[in-house]
Amino acid sequence: DRRGYPEAVFCEGKTADQVGRIATALADQRQVSLFTRVREEHVQAIHAVLPDAAYDATARIVAWPPTPPEPTGGPVLVLAAGTSDLPVAQEALLTARYLGRHAELVVDVGVAGLHRILAQVPRLRAASAIVVAAGMDGALPSVVAGLVAAPVVAVPTSVGYGAAFEGLAALLTMLNACAPGVAVVNIDNGYGAGHLAAQIAAP
Amino acid sequence: DRRGYPEAVFCEGKTADQVGRIATALADQRQVSLFTRVREEHVQAIHAVLPDAAYDATARIVAWPPTPPEPTGGPVLVLAAGTSDLPVAQEALLTARYLGRHAELVVDVGVAGLHRILAQVPRLRAASAIVVAAGMDGALPSVVAGLVAAPVVAVPTSVGYGAAFEGLAALLTMLNACAPGVAVVNIDNGYGAGHLAAQIAAP
Amino acid sequence: DRRGYPEAVFCEGKTADQVGRIATALADQRQVSLFTRVREEHVQAIHAVLPDAAYDATARIVAWPPTPPEPTGGPVLVLAAGTSDLPVAQEALLTARYLGRHAELVVDVGVAGLHRILAQVPRLRAASAIVVAAGMDGALPSVVAGLVAAPVVAVPTSVGYGAAFEGLAALLTMLNACAPGVAVVNIDNGYGAGHLAAQIAAP
Amino acid sequence: DRRGYPEAVFCEGKTADQVGRIATALADQRQVSLFTRVREEHVQAIHAVLPDAAYDATARIVAWPPTPPEPTGGPVLVLAAGTSDLPVAQEALLTARYLGRHAELVVDVGVAGLHRILAQVPRLRAASAIVVAAGMDGALPSVVAGLVAAPVVAVPTSVGYGAAFEGLAALLTMLNACAPGVAVVNIDNGYGAGHLAAQIAAP
Amino acid sequence: DRRGYPEAVFCEGKTADQVGRIATALADQRQVSLFTRVREEHVQAIHAVLPDAAYDATARIVAWPPTPPEPTGGPVLVLAAGTSDLPVAQEALLTARYLGRHAELVVDVGVAGLHRILAQVPRLRAASAIVVAAGMDGALPSVVAGLVAAPVVAVPTSVGYGAAFEGLAALLTMLNACAPGVAVVNIDNGYGAGHLAAQIAAP
Amino acid sequence: DRRGYPEAVFCEGKTADQVGRIATALADQRQVSLFTRVREEHVQAIHAVLPDAAYDATARIVAWPPTPPEPTGGPVLVLAAGTSDLPVAQEALLTARYLGRHAELVVDVGVAGLHRILAQVPRLRAASAIVVAAGMDGALPSVVAGLVAAPVVAVPTSVGYGAAFEGLAALLTMLNACAPGVAVVNIDNGYGAGHLAAQIAAP
Amino acid sequence: DRRGYPEAVFCEGKTADQVGRIATALADQRQVSLFTRVREEHVQAIHAVLPDAAYDATARIVAWPPTPPEPTGGPVLVLAAGTSDLPVAQEALLTARYLGRHAELVVDVGVAGLHRILAQVPRLRAASAIVVAAGMDGALPSVVAGLVAAPVVAVPTSVGYGAAFEGLAALLTMLNACAPGVAVVNIDNGYGAGHLAAQIAAP
Amino acid sequence: DRRGYPEAVFCEGKTADQVGRIATALADQRQVSLFTRVREEHVQAIHAVLPDAAYDATARIVAWPPTPPEPTGGPVLVLAAGTSDLPVAQEALLTARYLGRHAELVVDVGVAGLHRILAQVPRLRAASAIVVAAGMDGALPSVVAGLVAAPVVAVPTSVGYGAAFEGLAALLTMLNACAPGVAVVNIDNGYGAGHLAAQIAAP
Ligand SMILES: Nc1ncnc2c1ncn2[C@@H]1O[C@H](COP(=O)(O)O)[C@@H](O)[C@H]1O
Ligand SMILES: Nc1ncnc2c1ncn2[C@@H]1O[C@H](COP(=O)(O)O)[C@@H](O)[C@H]1O
Ligand SMILES: Nc1ncnc2c1ncn2[C@@H]1O[C@H](COP(=O)(O)O)[C@@H](O)[C@H]1O
Ligand SMILES: Nc1ncnc2c1ncn2[C@@H]1O[C@H](COP(=O)(O)O)[C@@H](O)[C@H]1O
Ligand SMILES: [Mg+2]
Ligand SMILES: [Mg+2]
Ligand SMILES: [Mg+2]
Ligand SMILES: [Mg+2]
Ligand SMILES: [Mg+2]
Ligand SMILES: [Mg+2]
Ligand SMILES: [Mg+2]
Ligand SMILES: [Mg+2]
Repeated sequence: DRRGYPEAVFCEGKTADQVGRIATALADQRQVSLFTRVREEHVQAIHAVLPDAAYDATARIVAWPPTPPEPTGGPVLVLAAGTSDLPVAQEALLTARYLGRHAELVVDVGVAGLHRILAQVPRLRAASAIVVAAGMDGALPSVVAGLVAAPVVAVPTSVGYGAAFEGLAALLTMLNACAPGVAVVNIDNGYGAGHLAAQIAAP
Repeated sequence: DRRGYPEAVFCEGKTADQVGRIATALADQRQVSLFTRVREEHVQAIHAVLPDAAYDATARIVAWPPTPPEPTGGPVLVLAAGTSDLPVAQEALLTARYLGRHAELVVDVGVAGLHRILAQVPRLRAASAIVVAAGMDGALPSVVAGLVAAPVVAVPTSVGYGAAFEGLAALLTMLNACAPGVAVVNIDNGYGAGHLAAQIAAP
Repeated sequence: DRRGYPEAVFCEGKTADQVGRIATALADQRQVSLFTRVREEHVQAIHAVLPDAAYDATARIVAWPPTPPEPTGGPVLVLAAGTSDLPVAQEALLTARYLGRHAELVVDVGVAGLHRILAQVPRLRAASAIVVAAGMDGALPSVVAGLVAAPVVAVPTSVGYGAAFEGLAALLTMLNACAPGVAVVNIDNGYGAGHLAAQIAAP
Repeated sequence: DRRGYPEAVFCEGKTADQVGRIATALADQRQVSLFTRVREEHVQAIHAVLPDAAYDATARIVAWPPTPPEPTGGPVLVLAAGTSDLPVAQEALLTARYLGRHAELVVDVGVAGLHRILAQVPRLRAASAIVVAAGMDGALPSVVAGLVAAPVVAVPTSVGYGAAFEGLAALLTMLNACAPGVAVVNIDNGYGAGHLAAQIAAP
Repeated sequence: DRRGYPEAVFCEGKTADQVGRIATALADQRQVSLFTRVREEHVQAIHAVLPDAAYDATARIVAWPPTPPEPTGGPVLVLAAGTSDLPVAQEALLTARYLGRHAELVVDVGVAGLHRILAQVPRLRAASAIVVAAGMDGALPSVVAGLVAAPVVAVPTSVGYGAAFEGLAALLTMLNACAPGVAVVNIDNGYGAGHLAAQIAAP
Repeated sequence: DRRGYPEAVFCEGKTADQVGRIATALADQRQVSLFTRVREEHVQAIHAVLPDAAYDATARIVAWPPTPPEPTGGPVLVLAAGTSDLPVAQEALLTARYLGRHAELVVDVGVAGLHRILAQVPRLRAASAIVVAAGMDGALPSVVAGLVAAPVVAVPTSVGYGAAFEGLAALLTMLNACAPGVAVVNIDNGYGAGHLAAQIAAP
Repeated sequence: DRRGYPEAVFCEGKTADQVGRIATALADQRQVSLFTRVREEHVQAIHAVLPDAAYDATARIVAWPPTPPEPTGGPVLVLAAGTSDLPVAQEALLTARYLGRHAELVVDVGVAGLHRILAQVPRLRAASAIVVAAGMDGALPSVVAGLVAAPVVAVPTSVGYGAAFEGLAALLTMLNACAPGVAVVNIDNGYGAGHLAAQIAAP
Repeated sequence: DRRGYPEAVFCEGKTADQVGRIATALADQRQVSLFTRVREEHVQAIHAVLPDAAYDATARIVAWPPTPPEPTGGPVLVLAAGTSDLPVAQEALLTARYLGRHAELVVDVGVAGLHRILAQVPRLRAASAIVVAAGMDGALPSVVAGLVAAPVVAVPTSVGYGAAFEGLAALLTMLNACAPGVAVVNIDNGYGAGHLAAQIAAP
């Protein structure tokens, strides 16, 4: 890849066959690779070619080689507002790690219980980039960006119902964050959030 | 009015003439009245009939009789996230007062500077109903509802630009508040918010 | 919970395993709990830990302890415009009861047959808070709020098709209710409606 | 016109010059004509050609010949939910009259004060077609259609603000009316509503 | 029913059990009934109570008594722009018949082949009310309303894909029909369209 | 320009000064130019530099050199559904001419009066490309595309009100045209429509 | 067909039975035919009548007679931005071929890797019409239209998630393409894109 | 400010009086300040208090002290797709400079003329953060992010008309950018874009 980052294969719209053929090509080039949004059948097709590839069922990511590179650059912190935001947060976490950053995860720090996020302030301030995954009202990035000097990568999730409109409500909240320093990515785009955070925290 | 509350006249789509005629009719019945969303010409037409009516330019409200009733029920607290939310907050404040509640206003307590809202916690907890006016990300009601046991009346404002979509972003945030206890009213509807808060805090 | 109300667990995006673990933690703390939007598998996981928990299939709620507290505060009335709005109305009803209110339900009082809602006026006027669940045109809260002095909690439902847009039409109707005193919550949010009504009718 | 109804000229996007030229052509053919959505300058251009044309400033209609035809068919009743809906209701009223129907107007019968619409039931039941103009929640047609056997022509108005979305909320309400027998036309389309009612009530 | 029309039961959100209970109640009152949007299980539950009820699988309607009343009033014509609009058109057709009108159906007369609709002009002009069901561009009602003096009931269908947005495109087209005389009902609402046409063509 | 077509300057967001400077630069290069969406002040600034530039007030286009090139390729026909669509149609007409095509205009051929468009069939069939400008229901391109073998360039206009949503209704209609062969461009984009038609009809 | 092109049968909303009957009718008339958006069961129904019909599983097209006509007119080039856009691109490709054009396909030339599309410039410039299928950001047509003099038919695909809104994002991008010469068709409408390209490149 | 960056005053919804009072308070604290979205009257009110404050009419920014700090961190590059995007780009440029970065501007590098952006590749690759302002199709960030390893801050502008929907089209394009590394901010939010870029490029 032109930018030194792993090649990413978005598997959602692809058959197991197509993913298998892509895995073969990447294996031939010994290309560092991330397969995102995998289903069970994709994992099998990849393992047939790259048997030691690492698979994370929550993040729906397969990575090869299985061990992330030695971390460089600044630390990345990933926050999930609620437990239901975990898959997106985990996708961001692993992406940041496989792109070469030190990355950690904190779950269940939504704004309805402020003490939980306030208890994390020192850790927040130590990060070079913070990813915040939140659905429903999507209010957490506004609060976090008001507490730190580093950029906040906000990823709205499709968690919620009714007027959450599959993540649209959270997306709009984040685009209108009343604190500056919020970088928004697409709904449920944990991969993009982790990638952007890794770029921001690059050495 | 069937419910013992003042008659309210929404002046936005009305001519000065029409408002003058309504004022005359209400004066004849000695009806306690609120004129909302008034323009200069409306104020003049009302003052021609009810010369002692009280006019608040920020709230764009004219009230008659000019002095609110002696407060009963519990206290109402009105919060404005930013200075630009003031007109809507003031409309809520005066409405609650003219409906017979003790009501106070706190401005500029947006979530981008959490210490400001946290400094208000004792006052928040003393209120029987809290109105929160906020535009842009509309995140303040989620935070406030997590701090108190009383109902929070959330009124989105059209403050902001771009993806604020004239208050739609704040409206959706409030409908998806991750804390329960948030009662949402229409965008910029300070009158409705103050009315609802007065009903909730009624004796 | 900081506010003396039961802890609520939103089960929709959670596995039976996750819900089981949360139930265990709550059982350990002897925490009064509501599990909302449960599926069959959630019920089984909860019953394995809290065998006497009460389950209502229409409301999709599991409550522990199974018996609601002795009612305090004012009475709550829950209205369902049509039979299809019943699940949302029932979720509101049980939530209000488990939060400690006396609560009753009236079904099939839509505005297409005004005599049915008019027949309920004495009962409407006796309530401290009224929840109205309605889909399609969502017109019932406007009519009810014109008949009573207490706050009306309006919960739009996703009942309907086509231009009902999964509850959006009813939501907009309610936000634009021509009578003041209407508190709107998210589409299908029976839990939030019952919670808000219980707060409004609190002693 | 192929259907025996007056030729209608929609003036909104036209210059006074263009309207004057059209008036001249229609005068030459002695064509019965309605000019809708006129501005002052249009009225002058028409009067230069058809000095006896009738002009109604509320409805923004100019009609020629000035006197409506002798009424035939059944009676049309036009309802305006509030005073602000008057211009649209008046446009419908005059259109129905110039198309040859007996037509009457009732204003300020919104659903927030049910007694006002209930007081009109005998008159409602006497009409062959009823036009209902309503903005904000747009709930009146649902109620009226539940009271009568004749078709109800529902015309949403752009009255309101915020989540009224310039008449969209009322439009959706009307399309989802829970009583059958509601015929919806475009937002603020008083002309179309009056035309349709006149066709329905035709002899 | 207050208006002399059959009682309609909207079955979409109901269980077979609920529909069975309603059928029993209606059978007891010997109430003329229409069950709309039925599924197989609903049909069985109704037939258990009303074994001679008529079932039309295309319209998804069950009617009791099975034979429509002797027709009165004027003729109703139902047009389907394409074959895929047939279910909605058939629902309108049967509704009009069971409400007591003479009603006929013409399929596949979309505007892309004008000769087909032009060949129907004499039949169009003989009708007292015309229902037009169309999806995709929804252009047929504009063309038909330009050819006849009777009201056109336009029912948008959810036929199409992409920017058809499940019938929204057709709905907007119909609301903006450039010919007057178009009465719009909800997307896929064949029942409502047939009902309205029957009211318009009533004796 | 890389494609041999005139350089187009979109003036809407530009000051007279900026447009004057661009005109000077183009004059220096003797570049064939079109200035679109001009206001009076733009025209003066251009005429100061290119005194013989041609200005069309309806199309809001300034062209230099003032005379279009000798036509080549096939004929382009531009249709305007109504008079209000004329500015957009004229912009398309002149663009096609200045790009070197023979182009003609036909106005007021909307689908509400089918005989008018049917009278044009021979002329329609003689064109190599047809531009259709229509607002409101936007139904004309569907009808025209069903009558000819050449591509139809459909340009929705913002003519209409209410549910026309500033051209959105017409845009959706055209994207869903039930006849193939319809090429859609942006709302009110007469320039783009004329350009595309000129490319299609190029020699 | 009035235009000499094959008759197309849109199978999506049709049963196998209906498609079989249509195939029989077309076989009887020996009508050149395309069946689009077929499912397995449709293919079987068609093969029962036209056993030698050609079936392409990627494009979901069945064609009869199986061999496309000898190509005439100019060459058509079909581009797919990514592999997931292949089904739509293939539908366009085959449609263009069965309408009598020489047509070729190039896959995976998205704008994130500009060198891939730049490598195709000579081939792009040789085409009489270019179809571009792209989802997500839909940016490819803007880039391609800036490189060639021929019209570009842009077909947005529903590839993507979140704020791709099932192709809406790509559709809007294409309608706003900053280079002229972009003809937009409906989301996922490969058939329409291929048809339009074949018309543009017709002899 | 908690983060060491200048205090920013958003002037859009404020009177000259209010801005003057804020300027006085900031002057008293000798607080480094940025006033954004100023109008003429704001500038005068600020200059009355801070006579040496710097004013940029294109960016609509007033800064005090007038000279930006000595640059630290990495270089920021700001791109404007077209001339009409200049105000937003200039707001980003100045914000980055006043936050302490070296920042430069490149205008008119839209994707319709790829050679212009390709000519900038070395400069693009030298930047630590790149701001891209683009309206209409908003395609430029996708292309730029494919050419560099640094984060791209994408700011959609409201430039365009029709289906540009005041920047919504460009916003969606950017959220769906097919290359990773794109950080999106609100429509027309040059201040936010410059702030984020300055944070990313901080030392
Ligand atoms: N049915 C529901 N709808 C909306 N919010 C709910 C619902 N049930 C629970 N909640 C809220 O969601 C929170 C629990 O979320 P969680 O921690 O993910 O279980 C509770 O504190 C409630 O405020
Ligand atoms: N298919 C349908 N679409 C829309 N409304 C319907 C339909 N069928 C019945 N209705 C209406 O819904 C009412 C019955 O609703 P319910 O009492 O829930 O069965 C009837 O009185 C009709 O007005
Ligand atoms: N009226 C118009 N509508 C849409 N695009 C236009 C229009 N006029 C010019 N353009 C396009 O905008 C480009 C010029 O933009 P600019 O350089 O800002 O003047 C031209 O090359 C055309 O592609
Ligand atoms: N042009 C702008 N766009 C968006 N946010 C801004 C802008 N200018 C200032 N802000 C934000 O608004 C806050 C100031 O709001 P206020 O206290 O109302 O003046 C600042 O701290 C910034 O976060
Ligand atoms: Mg890749
Ligand atoms: Mg009143
Ligand atoms: Mg909880
Ligand atoms: Mg006319
Ligand atoms: Mg019923
Ligand atoms: Mg140019
Ligand atoms: Mg066909
Ligand atoms: Mg500030």
